[in-house]
This record gives sequence, structure tokens and C-alpha cells, in this order.
Amino acid sequence: MMVVLGELGGRDEYSLVEALKQGKVNKPVVAWVSGTCARLFKSEVQFGHAGAKSGGEMESAQAKNQALKDAGAVVPTSYEAFEAAIKETFEKLVEEGKITPIKEVKPLQIPEDLNSAIKSGKVRAPTHIISTISDDRGEEPCYAGVPMSSIVEQGFGVGDVISLLWFKRSLPRYCTKFIEICIMLCADHGPCVSGAHNTIVTARAGKDLVSSLVSGLLTIGPRFGGAIDDAARYFKDAYDRGLTPYEFVEDMKKKGIRVPGIGHRIKRGDNRDKRVELLQLFARTNFPSVKYMEYAVQVETYTLSKANNLVLNVDGAIGSLFLDLLAGSGMFTKQEIDEIVEIGYLNGLFVLARSIGLIGHTFDQKRLKQPLYRHPWEDVLYTK
Amino acid sequence: MMVVLGELGGRDEYSLVEALKQGKVNKPVVAWVSGTCARLFKSEVQFGHAGAKSGGEMESAQAKNQALKDAGAVVPTSYEAFEAAIKETFEKLVEEGKITPIKEVKPLQIPEDLNSAIKSGKVRAPTHIISTISDDRGEEPCYAGVPMSSIVEQGFGVGDVISLLWFKRSLPRYCTKFIEICIMLCADHGPCVSGAHNTIVTARAGKDLVSSLVSGLLTIGPRFGGAIDDAARYFKDAYDRGLTPYEFVEDMKKKGIRVPGIGHRIKRGDNRDKRVELLQLFARTNFPSVKYMEYAVQVETYTLSKANNLVLNVDGAIGSLFLDLLAGSGMFTKQEIDEIVEIGYLNGLFVLARSIGLIGHTFDQKRLKQPLYRHPWEDVLYTK
Amino acid sequence: MMVVLGELGGRDEYSLVEALKQGKVNKPVVAWVSGTCARLFKSEVQFGHAGAKSGGEMESAQAKNQALKDAGAVVPTSYEAFEAAIKETFEKLVEEGKITPIKEVKPLQIPEDLNSAIKSGKVRAPTHIISTISDDRGEEPCYAGVPMSSIVEQGFGVGDVISLLWFKRSLPRYCTKFIEICIMLCADHGPCVSGAHNTIVTARAGKDLVSSLVSGLLTIGPRFGGAIDDAARYFKDAYDRGLTPYEFVEDMKKKGIRVPGIGHRIKRGDNRDKRVELLQLFARTNFPSVKYMEYAVQVETYTLSKANNLVLNVDGAIGSLFLDLLAGSGMFTKQEIDEIVEIGYLNGLFVLARSIGLIGHTFDQKRLKQPLYRHPWEDVLYTK
Amino acid sequence: MMVVLGELGGRDEYSLVEALKQGKVNKPVVAWVSGTCARLFKSEVQFGHAGAKSGGEMESAQAKNQALKDAGAVVPTSYEAFEAAIKETFEKLVEEGKITPIKEVKPLQIPEDLNSAIKSGKVRAPTHIISTISDDRGEEPCYAGVPMSSIVEQGFGVGDVISLLWFKRSLPRYCTKFIEICIMLCADHGPCVSGAHNTIVTARAGKDLVSSLVSGLLTIGPRFGGAIDDAARYFKDAYDRGLTPYEFVEDMKKKGIRVPGIGHRIKRGDNRDKRVELLQLFARTNFPSVKYMEYAVQVETYTLSKANNLVLNVDGAIGSLFLDLLAGSGMFTKQEIDEIVEIGYLNGLFVLARSIGLIGHTFDQKRLKQPLYRHPWEDVLYTK
Repeated sequence: MMVVLGELGGRDEYSLVEALKQGKVNKPVVAWVSGTCARLFKSEVQFGHAGAKSGGEMESAQAKNQALKDAGAVVPTSYEAFEAAIKETFEKLVEEGKITPIKEVKPLQIPEDLNSAIKSGKVRAPTHIISTISDDRGEEPCYAGVPMSSIVEQGFGVGDVISLLWFKRSLPRYCTKFIEICIMLCADHGPCVSGAHNTIVTARAGKDLVSSLVSGLLTIGPRFGGAIDDAARYFKDAYDRGLTPYEFVEDMKKKGIRVPGIGHRIKRGDNRDKRVELLQLFARTNFPSVKYMEYAVQVETYTLSKANNLVLNVDGAIGSLFLDLLAGSGMFTKQEIDEIVEIGYLNGLFVLARSIGLIGHTFDQKRLKQPLYRHPWEDVLYTK
Repeated sequence: MMVVLGELGGRDEYSLVEALKQGKVNKPVVAWVSGTCARLFKSEVQFGHAGAKSGGEMESAQAKNQALKDAGAVVPTSYEAFEAAIKETFEKLVEEGKITPIKEVKPLQIPEDLNSAIKSGKVRAPTHIISTISDDRGEEPCYAGVPMSSIVEQGFGVGDVISLLWFKRSLPRYCTKFIEICIMLCADHGPCVSGAHNTIVTARAGKDLVSSLVSGLLTIGPRFGGAIDDAARYFKDAYDRGLTPYEFVEDMKKKGIRVPGIGHRIKRGDNRDKRVELLQLFARTNFPSVKYMEYAVQVETYTLSKANNLVLNVDGAIGSLFLDLLAGSGMFTKQEIDEIVEIGYLNGLFVLARSIGLIGHTFDQKRLKQPLYRHPWEDVLYTK
Repeated sequence: MMVVLGELGGRDEYSLVEALKQGKVNKPVVAWVSGTCARLFKSEVQFGHAGAKSGGEMESAQAKNQALKDAGAVVPTSYEAFEAAIKETFEKLVEEGKITPIKEVKPLQIPEDLNSAIKSGKVRAPTHIISTISDDRGEEPCYAGVPMSSIVEQGFGVGDVISLLWFKRSLPRYCTKFIEICIMLCADHGPCVSGAHNTIVTARAGKDLVSSLVSGLLTIGPRFGGAIDDAARYFKDAYDRGLTPYEFVEDMKKKGIRVPGIGHRIKRGDNRDKRVELLQLFARTNFPSVKYMEYAVQVETYTLSKANNLVLNVDGAIGSLFLDLLAGSGMFTKQEIDEIVEIGYLNGLFVLARSIGLIGHTFDQKRLKQPLYRHPWEDVLYTK
Repeated sequence: MMVVLGELGGRDEYSLVEALKQGKVNKPVVAWVSGTCARLFKSEVQFGHAGAKSGGEMESAQAKNQALKDAGAVVPTSYEAFEAAIKETFEKLVEEGKITPIKEVKPLQIPEDLNSAIKSGKVRAPTHIISTISDDRGEEPCYAGVPMSSIVEQGFGVGDVISLLWFKRSLPRYCTKFIEICIMLCADHGPCVSGAHNTIVTARAGKDLVSSLVSGLLTIGPRFGGAIDDAARYFKDAYDRGLTPYEFVEDMKKKGIRVPGIGHRIKRGDNRDKRVELLQLFARTNFPSVKYMEYAVQVETYTLSKANNLVLNVDGAIGSLFLDLLAGSGMFTKQEIDEIVEIGYLNGLFVLARSIGLIGHTFDQKRLKQPLYRHPWEDVLYTK
């Protein structure tokens, strides 16, 4: 006879079912697959989170038991009844003369569990993932080494958490406040821009919040939302290479690239953008240095001499001031600043900020119970 | 002869090209398609943003001109040369005796442009989209009626902007501060959870920030990130229906649903979660009422009598306190609160918060220059 | 008195509600907002599809009616009762001596509906979208001009539909059959690759099919799934520039780029990949020319002289043969082929093909009722 | 002295760097971290695919070497120079009298590598993922046990691959041909529907193919693309419960649900949809039973008696015939069919099919070089 105590995730049970069905196993089989051993794996038992999971495991174990039973195995109704089932089957075989009891032997060594083998130093397993920004293994998660409760206790703000998780250091409060201001200024720009539009269309298709948000986020890139990042990149390059505003603007013109961060639909040299003025005021009051912003202002002076609407806009102000934040804080090496600009952290700032607006638009359409959107035929040129 | 002054987006040019090719038009055609009339459409000329677009338009106009030329039309090299080309072609036809000039006639009325027709009240067009949360048509965007510069000037925080864009009202500062604390507490939970994991895998596939973020966000739902929303929903339902903690917990048990917001991997009744205590302290100090939270605490008292790890966790604390925020502020009707809970605003809070962490993980992997991830074969059970 | 017959989507009703609330309108108001006029808009009445929508519209109309009623207007219970309500209110006012009936006057011209104004040539509206591949305005949709029923009737296959919608022409059957073979070969590559892995994680988070599929698709890019596209691009460039295999391979080596499409984990020069042989056989039998493939084979001959596993693999075979398909069919200009390679049609082929596998993995995990995935802590290196 | 031969992914090197920096290690350190040992891990060495990866690994190894060097370790320029560097450092220490050579000792047992430990049966590791549909571990991938080359050799079509990966069995050719017809019929429905619209907007934002496709896919759900699935579900439920067409339709009416699969914008009882007729012809010719379709036709007969446009449409035909495919093939148990309908395989069919169209729209917009889309302000009702 064969006695099987099955585990979740093990390989053997289904092979056995197969073998039973194909008649390859002729001996009586007494089997039990338990869902409760999940208890042994520490990483998967968070009460609360784990509801759906445990349900899945139970069903998985039940499915195995059922499959074994269907294939002809003796399967008790509970683990408690397992021993009795084994004994009963065994004694029946003895009684029928099919087997003769032999003396007990010392069992072979069973394979050791991976985690204990690692702990005892017998085995080492290479890790497949490296991570440096946060750690959830202790009593409470840490962001860049700072425990979450300490973040609350110290009265930190959203900008401080961004500082820890993105920059891996605790920037001074004027820096993190500036990050918060940027998020507020970029949080939304009406329902007509690509991002909000796609989010609205998806929400109106009756889809969930995440799908609606995501459908809009995917439009963020070179043409939508990229101006802040571009402004930072170009201003940095021009300033670091020592170009005069004249050289910079004319060089861009020659390449056929509009200067990002310059120009406004309504605002003029004699009707400045209040938001830009507020950002400049904040930086002049708090930043140790605003050299990149001053450079952007000089560029603006030159472009205004060419057309009255070529003012420094919000994108340009944020882009240049972010460079001042990085350089002025004294907490980053030159190489780190280059890396931050290259990876595109400012794009991350825009993406996070605009998520607030996109989630808002989703809620808005759901509140308004708007129906499925269909673009009007009349607005499409069907051609070849 | 035929004179054509083409526009971006018009239907006619390609029909003409077709007709010329098929020999349906035999008269000489003088044509010019201009990309510069884009200037006339106010909504599409934001300097800076519009770089890529205008480039596209120029090419579109050029493509039309090329197509017309290829089909045999006379196409000048610039708009300025258009008049001369018309005159030349006309005079050539007169000279060849193919046409005889006639007296000028008053031209037929041309169709009016839609926008001017709407303004003059002659035509009305139904709008296809309704939006209520933000407006970008003026000098600067407004969130729920509040101009962006005013938001900066008043020293608002990220929570205040969320209040305006999601709740369409200016909640008191203790409410928006509470929202900010929730965002900070939910910003990340390490690299092993579904969301961070998928984001890491996508970033390691060399994909851009938005794709990496989005791949992780899509795992947020019933099993990952849903506990706060569930806690709010169940606690609200139980409290509003007047269930005692005993009735609530036993009722959930009977339905086979674990109580969301209760239970912790490490924390115990005699080793409480500091974050929960901080949230409770904040609320007791600032909220006019914490009736839902007190209810959650009573539930915890009962569950602790059953097992020592069944403590109120962060999810449960946030979920119940958010109900107190809504009810206690006095700024929402009962119906509005029901709608907010039904639509799932708390899920929005989690999604926004966790975006900070997911963006952080993307930056982290890019900084670490991690290669393509491939799940190890050894960790997969291949079965039938 | 004021009589209002409201429409879905109109601007006026909510302004009126506002005015009533603010006491700006003191006259009695009789109002009705009808959801049934939706019938008039041809584009939104597809029975079947429109269920959810009409529901939304009804609620929208009802919401307006309710808002008007709440603001003090007289709102009947149905459109049929509208006339009576007007009459009743009017007569009540006459009776109360508040108004005196006057003689009927000819009403002012009301604004014309946009669509009829366009039809009658009075107004023209620029279209905002151009589309060329399919048209759904007639009795049945057309793909590149071919009606869908004709596609079925002619016994077309999936490759033929791709030919129409992507290439806008009806390629010969041997081409579309080749496209189908590529799709079949790329449909899946096991559960361990980035795409399948993320799809599996998302499906196990209990998310819907589209979210699961999408989370996996987002990993497709330069490092995962990009080899076919790269192979086509590099082979085309090398062949078109007339490089010998030696020059090509050594040039790539100098640049530090591995030759895409060359190399296999198991296959060797003396144990060729059967799939590659089948593709080559198909192409040699059916394609008028296989010059790019022959070039790839010459490259393989050279790389095999360096290492025995540097065989032409499936990616390289598909990439080079796709170039032969385009060039050999005689249906594309050189410029069109360049555009197709530049836009990345082969990436589209991979994305479409792998969607079959990703959807399969989603179904698989749902069938298996797998619980929430959490990456094991032990597999992560937490560092700084 | 300390000699370190580092590995990719190991924990030790960075700890050492840290220790060196903190002065905790004072002995001379000779170190080398090699990127080439990646060769040892079989799962990560596919030449071709692995280009980007290996690059990443090299950089990772180089980064470690650099960090060690910066921290003061002796790091040679290549592995070949490692031995010499050890010897040199050692001899220098001997020379300086800082160390005295001792006799060789037998080294302690080092931890065994996980994979070899598993193979030798010493350790067992639980698998975290179960997968049943495809296997990529052998010489070539297998779909449901069928090797890819065999799929090509047998002249299989796309429908057959879907059959293997979704249904895990080889359905008869008339079934897989029917699946292909459904894909062709659902491949596109013009640029105005939610999915195509969002894809077009994202492509026009300059985003890549996958982002554009995905942004459109996310609109597929209850209101867009859900009719086929709904038709199958409702027809199955009604037929299996034995409802007469009259009972079914009136029951739906009572619940306020429109019958999915019934109704057409243009088609009428006396102008039937040719596509539906072709599907019916195919099924009547090839299917062993069309009982569900006949039921749908009876429902249509009843609805046509109420209104002339309430014809069976393509969604209804596909939905009902798919049930006939499952039931008629005799290859599924009743329970399996219920599971297939519950999981929503038909939705998968629509999603896959429409991906063809969405990819086509992306290519179309890129070919047309369309600029950033911005929804016209005039089409939005800004309200409160």
C-alpha cells in the first residue's frame, strides 16, 4: 500500500493521480492533502491581507483531495481521520493476505527545507532581486532607513517621504516643501488634455479606478507632460556649457527645437504669470542659490525681446528651480545630479502630481454617472 | 482652371488628388495647402507644449502639397508665390485661347466657421463631455474654482489639493493633514508585494517610468491594497446597522470573511503598532468625533479576546478614521458619504500613495542598472 | 413664468437651478428634462451595446429633473404631463392676477442643430481626427475598404485581416500565411519570462483579464521581445549597406552589440533548430526571393566558425524573412519598407502574438485559483 | 590579508565596502568581481535575448569592482591579473614582515549551491508558481505538450494555438476555424469607439506601440466589448433553465436589462446582417449541434414581433455559437463549460481580436504623423 501526505505546491499528488488513472499504480493508496500547512510559511499569513489567498489554498488542497479520491485513492474527510484510514486499509490488506507486516526500519534522510538549510549555512541561494529604498521585514516598514512611525511623529510631509523614497536621503524642509508646491501646481490641467481625456473615456466605459487612471497616465511622455523635464535638461546643458542666453536660444532655433519652459498662451511680458512669481519668491527666500533660475530669467529677457508672449512659464520655472534645489542643497555629487536628470526624476514628479487630477476626473465621471463615450463620426476625417 | 487654397484637416484636398489621378478633373489646378493657418485655432498654439504638434501639422500640409503636385497640380513653393502662380496659369489659359475672361460675380456664401457660428447664436452643438473639478480656460487653471496661484499663496498642502480635486470643497486643515498622513503611511511596503514586484520587473525590462509604474498599479485591487477600503466599508455597515462588535465579528465569521483591518504578522495585544497609536492620537486631538474609530477599537477588544495577534492594524485605523473625517467634518450629506464609500475614494488614496513607492522602485532599479528579470525555472511547478 | 424643456447635455438646466437657489429667478418655473431625445442622435443608439449608456442618460435626465424640483421648479412626473403642468401653472398665475395673457408672437429663430447646419452647408467644422484603416459608418465595418462579410466569404484568415488593417492592402496568401506562422511561433514562451510573470502576478492579485494582460504587455520592449525587430533592423541595414558578414559581425563586436537573431541556449551547428528549418523551407518554397534570409545564413556561417552555439535562431529567421516578405511582394516602395521597419511593425507582431499566451496564463491562474503572489524575502538583497 | 572573488548577486561585496570605509577592516584586501560567472547559471544565457542583460551584469560587476577600489581594495584590471595581484600583495606583506606564511590547511566546507543541493536531494524548495499551459525548458517550447515545430509542420492555424494555450486541448479544425472567424469579425470597429479612440490619443502623444495599445485595451469591459460575453451568459442561462423565448425576453425587460446580442442600428428583419447569415451557415454546415444558436434565433423571432430592428446581431450570433462549439465538441465537461463562461473566455477572444485593430490604429497615426490631440474646449460642459 501507499500512504501519501500531500502538501500545497508539491509535485507528487498530480503525478500520482495520473499514475492511478493509467493503472500504473495498483496498490491501495491512502492519501490526504492538507491546506493547513500554509501555517508554516511565515511570509504568507498576514491576517487581513491573506483572506483571498488562504481561500485559494484551501480550494487547491481540496481539489487535490478530490482528484485523488476520483482516481481511486482512499481519502479521509479530515486530517484527524487520516491515521485511522491508514490503519484500516493496512489491516484489510493483512487480513486479505495480500501483505505481510515486516519489522520497522530506520527511514532515509528526507530533504531539508530550503530556509533552514540556508540558516544553518549548508546551502546558499543567489538572490534575484536587489532593492535599496524600503524595507518591510521588521515591525514596521522603513523608508530609506527611517521607520514609518518616526515619519509621522516628526511631522514630516508628503515631500519628505518622496525625498526618502526617491532620493534616499532626508532633504531640508525647504526642498521638500518646494517638491510639494510642484506637485500642487501640476496636479491638474483640465479635462481636455490627453491624460485627463483618456481617463474620462475609460471611466465612462465603466472601468475601475486603476484602469481609468492608467489609461490616462500612458499618454504622459514626450509631447504631454514632458516640458518640465525638457526645460531642466536644456537649461542645465546650456548653463553647464557656459552658453550665453543668446547662444542658447539661437542654437535651439538652428536645431529647430522650441525652447521648453518659454512661452504662454495668454501671459505677456507686461502681464506675468503669478505662479512663476510665487515660485521665484519662494526660491529667492529659501534657496541658498538660484543660479539656474537666474539663467532661465536671462533667457526669458532675450526671448521677450523677440516676442511679447515668450515669457518664462511654470514648466520653465519648475525645471530650472529643481536644478537649483539639487545643486544648492549640497547633498548630491555632480554625478548624482547628472544621473537624476538623465533618469528623469522630474517626469516622476509630473506623473505623481497628475495622478491626483486623473483620479479626481475618474471620481467626477462616476459621480456624474456618465455613459459610454463614443467619439462623434462628424469629427473624423475618413480617408485613405 | 481650379484654384485651391487648402487647410489643415479639410476633406477636399485628398478627394481632389484622387480625382486628378483618375482623370476626372481635366482643368489645370493651382493649389496651396498652408500649415500656418493653425495659428487661427486658439486651442492649439501653446508655445513650448506645441513643438511636436506644429511639426506634425507642417508635415501634414507638406504631404498634401506633395500629393497635389504629384497628381499634376501647379503647387508653388510658398504661400507668397501662390498669387503669382494663379495669375500665370490663368494668363496661359487665356493666351492658349482655352478660356475667355468674364466679369466678376459676387461669390456665393461660404460656410461659416463653427466657433463663430456658435458665438453668434446661429448654431448650437451638443457637448459630449461634462466635467466639474477643474477648469483650464482662463489665465491659470482653477481647482474647484480656486486659482492655482491662490493655492500656493495660501500655503496649501498636497492634502488640500486632493480635497479640492476629489471632494470639490476646501476641507479644514486637520482633515487634509490626515489625508497627507495616510499617503505617507501607504507610500511603500517593500519590494516583495505584487505592485512593487511588477514595477521592478518592468523597469528591469528597460521600460520607461510610466510603463513601470503602471504595470505595478494594475495589481492593486481586491487582494492587494484593498484592505483600507474594505475596512471602511465593513466598519461603516456594521456601525450604521447598530451591530455590537460581537455580532459583527461572529457574523463575518459565519460568512467566512476575515475582518479587514484586524490582525498583524508581528504586533500583539501587548506590543501595539505605534503607527496606529499615532493615528489615534492625531484623531483624538483634532477630530470633533471619532465614533467609527471607537467602534473599531471595541471590535479589536473582542478579537483580542480570541487571539493575541488580532490587533487593529494600520489599514483598520485609516479605514475607520476616514469615516470619522467625512462624518465629523459636517461638510457631507449622508448620501454623499455613501457615494464616496461606494465609489471607493480610499482606494484612490492608496493608489496615489503607493505611486510614490512604485516610482521610487523604478528609479532604484534604474540607478542599480539591473538587468532583465527572468523568474527561476526551479521556482515553478510545471504541471497539467 | 418660465417653461423649460431640457435636453441631455445642455448647459442651461444647471445654470437655472443655481439661479433659482440664489433667488435670481422669482417667476414660477415649469420644467422637464427628457432622456428620450437621445433617440435623435444617430450615433448613440445601438440597441444592445447601449444598455449601460441609456441607463446613464436616464439617470442624468432624472438628476436634472430632481435638481430643478429641489430648487423649486414645477416638474411633472412624465413628458406627457408636461403640457398640463404648463397650462395649470399659467392659469393659476392668470387667476392670481399676476400675469395678463397677450397675443401670440412669432418666435425668434432658434439656433440650428450642428449636424443639420453642416449638412445644409451653412457651417463647416474642422475634424480633429484622421483615420484611414477602417470605417464603421455603413451597414457593416470595412477593413481597408473590404467589408467584413466579404472577408468571411472569401475564406480569409487572421493574417489577411492583419494585412488589411496594418498594411492597408491585401497581401498574397503566402505572405499572410507567413504572418500567421510568426504569430504561432511567438504566442508563448513559458511562465518565467517578464511578460508572463507579471501577468501571472496580476491575475493572482484577483484582477480582471485586461489588467492582467496589460501588466504583462508593458514589459515588452528593448530587452524582452525586441530581438525580432532588432534582427530585422540590423540585417536590413547591413545588407542594404553591402557589408560582408565578416564586416557586419566584427563591426557589431566593435560597438559592443551582440548580433540579434544569432545564438541559442541549446541548439548547435550540428543540432539545428527545427523551427528555423521549417521557416526556411516555407520561404524557399513560397517566397519569390529570400535574399535577406540568405544573408542571415551567411552571417550564421561566419558566427558558427567562432562558436558552435552561434546559430541563426527563430528571432533571426523571422526578422530576416519578414524583410524578404516586404521586398519580395513587390507591393511596397522602398520608402514604405523603411517606414514599416522604423515604426516597428515586427514589434506589433510580437505583441499581438504574445497576447495569446498572456491571456492563456491569465485563464490558467484563474482556473488554478491561485492566491496572491508575494515575492519571497529570501530572494531579495536589501542593501543601501 | 583578505582575498575576495566576488559574484554577481552576492551579498558580501557591499558589506565589505562598507566595512572598509568604516575602518572596520584594516588588512589589505585584494578583490575581483567577475561578470562572466553568469555563464554558470543556465537560465540566463540565451545569446541574443541576453544582450541588454549581460550589459547590465557587466556594469553591475564593474560597479562592485569600482566600489571596492574606491574603498581602498587592490582590484586588478582583469580576472587574469587576479592571481598576480594576490601574490604581489601577499609577498609585499611578507617582505614588510607583517605576516608569516603558515602551512596549508584543509578548507572548511563552503555552502553548497542551491541548484546542486536540490538535484542531489539534500534540500527541497517549495515552488511559488504553478503553470500548466506551456513549457519552455526543453529544446523548443511546447504549447499544452505540443512542440512548436510540430505546430508549424502540421499546418496548424492561429485558432489551433489558441485552442492549445487557452483550452489545453487540440479542438477539431472546424472549432479553431470558427475561433479565427470570430477574431476576424471583432478585429476592428472604426476609430470612434472607446478603445480605438484612446489608442489614437496615446499614439498622438508620441508614445510607443505598447503604451498606445494598452491605453485602448483598458476601456474594454462592461460597456465596451462586453456584449458577446453577455450574450453567451444570458442565452446559456435562459436555455439551460428551460425558459421560452417569451419568458426570457419578458424576464429581462422586467429586470430592466436589454437582451444582449439583439438589435442593430441599420439592419432590419427584412434586411438581415450578412455576417450573421455567414456565421449561421458555417455552423449549420460544420457543427454537430447548434441548439444554442437555434434558441437565439427563436428569441429573435419573438423580438422581431416587437420591433423590426431587434434582429440577432453579430455579438449574439458569436455568443450563442460559442456555446454550441463548447457543448457540441464533446471535449468539455458541463463543469468545464460553466468555468469557461464564468472566467470569461469570450472576453479574451474580443480582447485579442481588437488588439489587431488597436495596433493598426497606432501604426496609422504614426504613418500620418499626427500631432498631440487636445479635446476641443467647445465640446466640454464645464459645470459644478
